[in-house]
Amino acid sequence: MSFSEQTISSETVFEGKVFDVCCQEVILDDNSKASREVVIHHGGAGILALDNDKNTFLVRQYRKGAECEMLEIPAGKLEKGENPKECAVRELREEIGAEAEKTEMLCEFFPTPAYCSEKITVFLAEGLTMHSQQLDSGELLEIIKLPFEKAVEMVMSGEITDAKTIISLLKAKELLRL
Amino acid sequence: MSFSEQTISSETVFEGKVFDVCCQEVILDDNSKASREVVIHHGGAGILALDNDKNTFLVRQYRKGAECEMLEIPAGKLEKGENPKECAVRELREEIGAEAEKTEMLCEFFPTPAYCSEKITVFLAEGLTMHSQQLDSGELLEIIKLPFEKAVEMVMSGEITDAKTIISLLKAKELLRL
Repeated sequence: MSFSEQTISSETVFEGKVFDVCCQEVILDDNSKASREVVIHHGGAGILALDNDKNTFLVRQYRKGAECEMLEIPAGKLEKGENPKECAVRELREEIGAEAEKTEMLCEFFPTPAYCSEKITVFLAEGLTMHSQQLDSGELLEIIKLPFEKAVEMVMSGEITDAKTIISLLKAKELLRL
Repeated sequence: MSFSEQTISSETVFEGKVFDVCCQEVILDDNSKASREVVIHHGGAGILALDNDKNTFLVRQYRKGAECEMLEIPAGKLEKGENPKECAVRELREEIGAEAEKTEMLCEFFPTPAYCSEKITVFLAEGLTMHSQQLDSGELLEIIKLPFEKAVEMVMSGEITDAKTIISLLKAKELLRL
């Protein structure tokens, strides 16, 4: 059995800088019709950086969606057609001021696949050289350097509540047996 | 140091069934102004069910945001003001046809805190009694029963790409030492 939803009409009801919104009519596999509201987003990239002493780097910033401060791995929005690795490397340089010798893909996932097209790709960066932050305007954040193990504890205790950060830390823990 | 973003204006530019969209002007802590686009969502709830043989239950369905089939824990959108546990228990009954003796909170997180207010709460359900599915109209899905361990393998291999499902499986693995 395989499932699909064929789009029979799609209307763009909002065009923004970060995302657009479409209202769609679809036909399901049982030939019934349904309506879907979809946020169209070009995708994001994040980077979990580990130094030689197994410290990682999170950023603390206010997030207007959640309406609270969050602790997150460095991450950003892809420009249309941009390569996720390029974006992740840029965010590491801008937000943390670091460059990595080795950058490998860690995971890819959909934060909210039901109503948003965003896919996030996260990379693992090792062999770091530190420079200084180069923040965009409208971006205020603090770098938090902490042991990888402590960051995982903060996931388990519920202090870290950002999905990409939870996924990256837990997946790296499994993978690297840290 | 603490960060905040004070909203000085907010305009609702889309009102939907699943979410609304607001365009906001904010003042940052350095007194600069910035624009934010925010998806307003009442939140969601999911449920990771484990039977006595350590099998779990995922649902396979087409997701219009991701434009592909996804494997996910049973989950749904909260009605305005609804208790997440009530919603999770309902989704377990409707999507899997199961009732649980014990239902405890596993985790809470924001899938995309930068631009969406959705918070997802996931519960761990044990001591299952099986009945039959009671799907909503416009919902076509297949129940996949599989060993918990196999589900974790599918996270690590990249076959499972839904954020709430990845987080729930990896967090339960850590917590229950499965």
